[in-house]
Amino acid sequence: MTSHSAPHHPTGSPLTGFPVPQLAVPGVAPGATRQESDTMGSIAVPADRYWGAQTQRSLDNFAIGNDVFPREMIRALGILKKSTAITNAKLGLLPQNLADLIIAAADEVISGQLDSHFPLKIWQTGSGTQTNMNTNEVISNRAIEAAGGVLGSKKPVHPNDHVNMSQSSNDTFPTAMHIAVAEQVHHKLLPEVRLLLAAIQQKVEAFQHIIKIGRTHLQDATPLTMGQAFSSFASQLEQALHAIEVNLTGVLALAIGGTAVGTGLNAPVGFAEGAAAAIAAETGLPFVSAPNKFAALSGHEALSALHGGGLRTLAVALTKIANDIRLLGSGPRSGLGELNLPANEPGSSIMPGKVNPTQCEALTMVCAQVLGNDAAVAIGAMNGHMELNVYKPLILRNVLESTRLLADSMRSFRVHCVEGITANETRIREHLNNSLMLVTALAPHIGYEKAAAIAYRAFETGGTLRAVAIEGGYVTGEEFDRWVDPAAMCAPGAGNA
Amino acid sequence: MTSHSAPHHPTGSPLTGFPVPQLAVPGVAPGATRQESDTMGSIAVPADRYWGAQTQRSLDNFAIGNDVFPREMIRALGILKKSTAITNAKLGLLPQNLADLIIAAADEVISGQLDSHFPLKIWQTGSGTQTNMNTNEVISNRAIEAAGGVLGSKKPVHPNDHVNMSQSSNDTFPTAMHIAVAEQVHHKLLPEVRLLLAAIQQKVEAFQHIIKIGRTHLQDATPLTMGQAFSSFASQLEQALHAIEVNLTGVLALAIGGTAVGTGLNAPVGFAEGAAAAIAAETGLPFVSAPNKFAALSGHEALSALHGGGLRTLAVALTKIANDIRLLGSGPRSGLGELNLPANEPGSSIMPGKVNPTQCEALTMVCAQVLGNDAAVAIGAMNGHMELNVYKPLILRNVLESTRLLADSMRSFRVHCVEGITANETRIREHLNNSLMLVTALAPHIGYEKAAAIAYRAFETGGTLRAVAIEGGYVTGEEFDRWVDPAAMCAPGAGNA
Amino acid sequence: MTSHSAPHHPTGSPLTGFPVPQLAVPGVAPGATRQESDTMGSIAVPADRYWGAQTQRSLDNFAIGNDVFPREMIRALGILKKSTAITNAKLGLLPQNLADLIIAAADEVISGQLDSHFPLKIWQTGSGTQTNMNTNEVISNRAIEAAGGVLGSKKPVHPNDHVNMSQSSNDTFPTAMHIAVAEQVHHKLLPEVRLLLAAIQQKVEAFQHIIKIGRTHLQDATPLTMGQAFSSFASQLEQALHAIEVNLTGVLALAIGGTAVGTGLNAPVGFAEGAAAAIAAETGLPFVSAPNKFAALSGHEALSALHGGGLRTLAVALTKIANDIRLLGSGPRSGLGELNLPANEPGSSIMPGKVNPTQCEALTMVCAQVLGNDAAVAIGAMNGHMELNVYKPLILRNVLESTRLLADSMRSFRVHCVEGITANETRIREHLNNSLMLVTALAPHIGYEKAAAIAYRAFETGGTLRAVAIEGGYVTGEEFDRWVDPAAMCAPGAGNA
Amino acid sequence: MTSHSAPHHPTGSPLTGFPVPQLAVPGVAPGATRQESDTMGSIAVPADRYWGAQTQRSLDNFAIGNDVFPREMIRALGILKKSTAITNAKLGLLPQNLADLIIAAADEVISGQLDSHFPLKIWQTGSGTQTNMNTNEVISNRAIEAAGGVLGSKKPVHPNDHVNMSQSSNDTFPTAMHIAVAEQVHHKLLPEVRLLLAAIQQKVEAFQHIIKIGRTHLQDATPLTMGQAFSSFASQLEQALHAIEVNLTGVLALAIGGTAVGTGLNAPVGFAEGAAAAIAAETGLPFVSAPNKFAALSGHEALSALHGGGLRTLAVALTKIANDIRLLGSGPRSGLGELNLPANEPGSSIMPGKVNPTQCEALTMVCAQVLGNDAAVAIGAMNGHMELNVYKPLILRNVLESTRLLADSMRSFRVHCVEGITANETRIREHLNNSLMLVTALAPHIGYEKAAAIAYRAFETGGTLRAVAIEGGYVTGEEFDRWVDPAAMCAPGAGNA
Repeated sequence: MTSHSAPHHPTGSPLTGFPVPQLAVPGVAPGATRQESDTMGSIAVPADRYWGAQTQRSLDNFAIGNDVFPREMIRALGILKKSTAITNAKLGLLPQNLADLIIAAADEVISGQLDSHFPLKIWQTGSGTQTNMNTNEVISNRAIEAAGGVLGSKKPVHPNDHVNMSQSSNDTFPTAMHIAVAEQVHHKLLPEVRLLLAAIQQKVEAFQHIIKIGRTHLQDATPLTMGQAFSSFASQLEQALHAIEVNLTGVLALAIGGTAVGTGLNAPVGFAEGAAAAIAAETGLPFVSAPNKFAALSGHEALSALHGGGLRTLAVALTKIANDIRLLGSGPRSGLGELNLPANEPGSSIMPGKVNPTQCEALTMVCAQVLGNDAAVAIGAMNGHMELNVYKPLILRNVLESTRLLADSMRSFRVHCVEGITANETRIREHLNNSLMLVTALAPHIGYEKAAAIAYRAFETGGTLRAVAIEGGYVTGEEFDRWVDPAAMCAPGAGNA
Repeated sequence: MTSHSAPHHPTGSPLTGFPVPQLAVPGVAPGATRQESDTMGSIAVPADRYWGAQTQRSLDNFAIGNDVFPREMIRALGILKKSTAITNAKLGLLPQNLADLIIAAADEVISGQLDSHFPLKIWQTGSGTQTNMNTNEVISNRAIEAAGGVLGSKKPVHPNDHVNMSQSSNDTFPTAMHIAVAEQVHHKLLPEVRLLLAAIQQKVEAFQHIIKIGRTHLQDATPLTMGQAFSSFASQLEQALHAIEVNLTGVLALAIGGTAVGTGLNAPVGFAEGAAAAIAAETGLPFVSAPNKFAALSGHEALSALHGGGLRTLAVALTKIANDIRLLGSGPRSGLGELNLPANEPGSSIMPGKVNPTQCEALTMVCAQVLGNDAAVAIGAMNGHMELNVYKPLILRNVLESTRLLADSMRSFRVHCVEGITANETRIREHLNNSLMLVTALAPHIGYEKAAAIAYRAFETGGTLRAVAIEGGYVTGEEFDRWVDPAAMCAPGAGNA
Repeated sequence: MTSHSAPHHPTGSPLTGFPVPQLAVPGVAPGATRQESDTMGSIAVPADRYWGAQTQRSLDNFAIGNDVFPREMIRALGILKKSTAITNAKLGLLPQNLADLIIAAADEVISGQLDSHFPLKIWQTGSGTQTNMNTNEVISNRAIEAAGGVLGSKKPVHPNDHVNMSQSSNDTFPTAMHIAVAEQVHHKLLPEVRLLLAAIQQKVEAFQHIIKIGRTHLQDATPLTMGQAFSSFASQLEQALHAIEVNLTGVLALAIGGTAVGTGLNAPVGFAEGAAAAIAAETGLPFVSAPNKFAALSGHEALSALHGGGLRTLAVALTKIANDIRLLGSGPRSGLGELNLPANEPGSSIMPGKVNPTQCEALTMVCAQVLGNDAAVAIGAMNGHMELNVYKPLILRNVLESTRLLADSMRSFRVHCVEGITANETRIREHLNNSLMLVTALAPHIGYEKAAAIAYRAFETGGTLRAVAIEGGYVTGEEFDRWVDPAAMCAPGAGNA
Repeated sequence: MTSHSAPHHPTGSPLTGFPVPQLAVPGVAPGATRQESDTMGSIAVPADRYWGAQTQRSLDNFAIGNDVFPREMIRALGILKKSTAITNAKLGLLPQNLADLIIAAADEVISGQLDSHFPLKIWQTGSGTQTNMNTNEVISNRAIEAAGGVLGSKKPVHPNDHVNMSQSSNDTFPTAMHIAVAEQVHHKLLPEVRLLLAAIQQKVEAFQHIIKIGRTHLQDATPLTMGQAFSSFASQLEQALHAIEVNLTGVLALAIGGTAVGTGLNAPVGFAEGAAAAIAAETGLPFVSAPNKFAALSGHEALSALHGGGLRTLAVALTKIANDIRLLGSGPRSGLGELNLPANEPGSSIMPGKVNPTQCEALTMVCAQVLGNDAAVAIGAMNGHMELNVYKPLILRNVLESTRLLADSMRSFRVHCVEGITANETRIREHLNNSLMLVTALAPHIGYEKAAAIAYRAFETGGTLRAVAIEGGYVTGEEFDRWVDPAAMCAPGAGNA
């Protein structure tokens, strides 16, 4: 018998994916509890966990769904608390020994070793207050333990007075949101876009001389090369990449320093800029202090624009690409059959050659989810009231989920599909040679009317253009082969000699 | 040191929520593997798991996101496999001893004891083939173990020939989707709607005599009782309840019997109806065989209608209710302050009376997510091609998530908010008495123009209607008190004597 | 030189589509104005229009976009005003001669003769107050004119006291919304769904014996008949039809009688039921009085459910149908080419046989718009506050637009596409005979492994199953032809003898 | 009797809004027709219109809805045809005299004088082919007329050979889409954003010294100035403005030169760059030739990003702003009442002071529509197939509608609401002085516990902080007034002396 422990966390590092060993309060009997307290009184918490009273209350009050905060956000909260401790110490507000204790505990939050102490659900207070307090409580108790103190005593490191010094949930939570999203986009999403782009560009080159029939309205049209078709995918991805980059700028502006309503009450002069600089130093990303803290608490334009302008554009482009690849790979006998897709799983035990485009399917499902998430983000972002938007955990959840799903599914699609695609040149040539559209190339030589007559007759009889053209005495075989040159039709400025 | 095991499953029973102990292959050394095979060859799987080769390949090929199939779906797959075994045995296709072995293993899938053997992600093939095979493989190996056989030998119970007999992924997966959704709606969602409705109706009665000012366009309007205001909530919930019920009908029609493309190839006559009846018997819900199996595989109108017509209507109603409650509970001093909401967590250590409407916030975030999920479901449902819709796991994920989140958040909202709401009668009376709108009641007695003149003067001077009316010689105090009767203004046919 | 007059109205009858001649104030000099007044004072209005001061103010204050209220809504407002006049007269509140004047003018509003007097935009006050007043003013002035009075004098028929008697914008506008939507769904949308269904069912019969290859994951699969493929379309449409019908119920409940906040202040006992009955009589549709008037003003669950559960399900089904038809019609040479679609326009002057599936394109664009409208409706419906939802014109606009576009595009798709579709039996047979999937039928006779071997070899060599099977000595030609019987594979219980 | 002519066009200039007189074929009897022809044969068209056979066929085949192409798009098509004629002439392909005839006619299309000759619906072929042909036909006939030729003769200016020279619908239509959108964003939308921003910044200054209570979670919080609250609006608008600008870049890249499938078949070398430069010269906007023409035909990433990243972000910000303004303006007696909104229309004849926030309502309805349009755009953009996306008219319609509605409603909101807003300083002071949250300022002086005790007692008794503090002997009146200084609480670095 084995048992799954709840709650679940993706405990792997968001950057490496490797699982991280979890720390726990040592020497604790199974099922034991200890008392923790807040302004509402005392409450029992599991003895092997570092969290305190407010975390416990939230656990009891918000048993909604299965979603806990993802690794990326917990890491971001650790980065935030480390950076604010550094800044408070620099500004002379926090004694260096307390700062050091906080920084050491925050480093464990950053690394993922304390993930199992963050049990709270997404569906809680809309400001994320309870998760900010969860962070304060865990760092406080872990620091107390390190200092040889008594868990829950709040001495020598107080969750509010020290870990949350110069801060409010209302500015810390949106700051951590931006850190988590910017890190994930920079370190996980953008690299995968670039890798997929490179894999597609390899196909552009590999397929550059394969001339195929074009299709508009899903109907036969004039030819292009398979490389040109893939260059469209590359261009669409490049546009999406650009859209993500330009829409990420606003996410680099941080709310920290605004405290409760944006005035910065209880935060010292210089704190906002200092904390932003410390976060930039810790992450290596160019974070800055948001120019208007009121807007940074009460609106989420930056994340809405990133999702709607960036992530969704990527989903739009990927859907087009995946759809085209499965259409071109349809068959093997009764579809288009112009591309061979890698066979990763048994399609059917009796049906060799049945390769289901499963990577395309996973990818297009992800893109549909991203469109759904996009609506949720916008609805959350537009419904702030007065000095605070209280849809923060919802917005965070959807932006991080979209980012993660897009990155993962692009990698899967690249490795298990794109890289292994080959062209079925026989089929491609068959389609091209059968095409009535090539008759266009005869028009400058024999006139539109005769060319049209050839095409009509070929359509009616099912014959090839070449056979019909020769049979009808319009051209010789040698002329046909010279004039009907699909390669020339694919070149820039084609047919304009 | 503790460590979270991956993958995560919500192992609690979907109906009771209690965790279920997990079975595992006994006597296995840590890290050991065994070989399993399929038509693509042999592959190593963890020795303590019952899954086979196809499951393992999917695990390797689809490392996308964290979402695995939820408990409800795994249970549904168990119900399906049990019911098809019963039907195949009845129809004489499957020997009874093999059927019994399958049924016993399927019962463990149903109960949740084998959840840790279902590691596959939502983001896989769009037909759910790999999860159907996961189920076949786990039941096969667990049955083989019970029969004293060798895991992976496919003897005496073959995953395809026996567990999947008369079936295809293309009909089993949508069948299990419908089972999972119908069970969750019936057993989890609808009961919570009814409980919330009852809690609100209690407030309708408790508040029936409290007359308050009405507000339209957020501006002061003619009065109604607080009970009437809550009766609106009740009516909106009743409409949502009705919408869920009428849109659930289509979900009770099952695809099983359609096999690969809807023709029922390889399924015997009578199988479709027999399996549907067995599923109805197992679940106690009135499932029937879908009248057109082609549509049951290639379209998801039923689930799209349930989400868009039912679940979303509930989200629409709940958002209105939660928004009104937090507006009426705003304050304590500088908001409307007409309702007292329960204080579940510390709002602020320095600020007694600051009760944040956190349950309203969690609920409205859930509703925003439901709107997002609604878009994803529709996009998935509309993009089927030919004989199969390949957005099935996406659709399932979103319908189940919306259902779960709505049920959980309604319960949380009811227990931690609605049941504890009280009316701030002092504040309500103050608003009512201050209202200029009550002047409407004087019009039939002194004429519209004089009534308007009173209202204008009161607005300008900031005085009460009563004071201004007496001062201006329009009425006596006794007349004012007799004529301006807010209670009468709330009664049906008010003011029409 | 010709000039388009603004504002634009669809002046055709919503039911017949024929244009209706417009009435105007007679004997008016071009550019002349007259003075009209309301509680804010006097204002100039065009002398040839019947509207009054409040309409004019709205025109000046809301110059947003081009959308004016559609014909269906203006007709509904006429029906409402006629029915309330009848009811007020019956209840003894309104003198019969005034009622008759109102009824005569309302009849002209109903018929469309006064459409050019309804210039207001959708984007106005969220309660539709200004359009309710527009209706009151136009009926008042037109009745005054009929009685020989002076336009703008409000005598003998006052816009508020008589035309709006026992009413408020807050109950009239949502009532008219329901009337407009129910009429349009009943008289325009449902008939078109049924006609399209009938056209598709004709194809089910016409194509019932044409056996074709199935396609799942866009890959070749076991066969079905083209009639069965179309039966899936029919079933999906039937499900959508059912979804519209069950979700229409709530729309038949009317807000009228709730007046300003739902209490019915200033409306007599019996008015709500009387007005609903009069509306039912006028329209021939089973309208009833809404059981809870507070919810009828402050929520729009009924219209949200109709759109999300009904109209959107139709869009989902139609998209699937249109996509399949254009895929099956793709070609003519290098696509699937199994269906011939009617050629309605020149595809290309040089390219006979290039039939672009333009009706499919128009239809799928409409469906995408319906999904967008669906989101707008839900966002509007969920954002009511207190006693009034102020997204009413938005909701109305989107429900009516979706209904109109779906009805029109289904008719266009039926007449210009579906009815003219024929099957390309040669191509269908070619695909079927080439299919490797037919090997499934050999398995019961020669065993799965030999059958698989045949399929593999055929895939590798590009040969036909028949040739490979005979060549390999697995079967005789006679056996192959007897056993591989695609027709039997399409029949229920196929292959289970 | 007056009659509305169909179809409707917004004939005003998109930039000035002034109506433009319409040209028509001179000397035509009412109801007369003439014959026009295309490759499908001859067809009757209205004799007073310049359109030809293909336009007429589309009119007959696509009677769907009421939406015709808006002014902006017709203008853009005129700009395109003028620019391509210039380029073809420069490249020596088109005789200068024909180019001059085309340019003159195109100038009339640009100016709006020929709008009544563009009757086609949005809901047509998804490539916009029919509207491209409509343009070709109108310019051809108008040019023929100018040259003294016979309408419909195609001499001397042929719609295909001359007006459409070096072009295909597949590249002209998306080019015109980008021209129309870029012009409307530059000339209509961005100026309105900037004007609204300026109006809000005026309020930031006007309200900079008015200290008010803050509200988070809709609950009383620490103070800020009304100017700071408005600065949040300004910042949100600035972020939206930035988001529109960065997401507009891609729209400046033009498809022209790609012709049918992106290869540029039949367009000469240099045509793409030449045409883009001519368009840039004509419009004064920095248009360039798209780097990849295949993507420019088959994808619409640029417009999707503009809508999702730019327009939607603006809708998100505007909704927040409008919601806050109507909440702060709620009342007059029983709401927050901190802002006075201009009274533009009668609220109620009996209820002075009832100012409905109608401009906020129109604006938030528009924003909800923009969110709906956003979904439609994304669905259209993601569903391109192979060498062509066939959701072009849908995408265009929604981007232009969102742009127009946002621009118009911002102007209306600014002129009729924002500019006239004043602060109700009495009410604001009342709320501030009543606030329990000011007790925070005592904590540094008397300690947190005593401060909390004061707040609790004030909450329980309903007393003011000052009274309770003095009564309890915690402070003197003089001390209270000195320490509790709301202005200091709003300053940066507040309370950190």
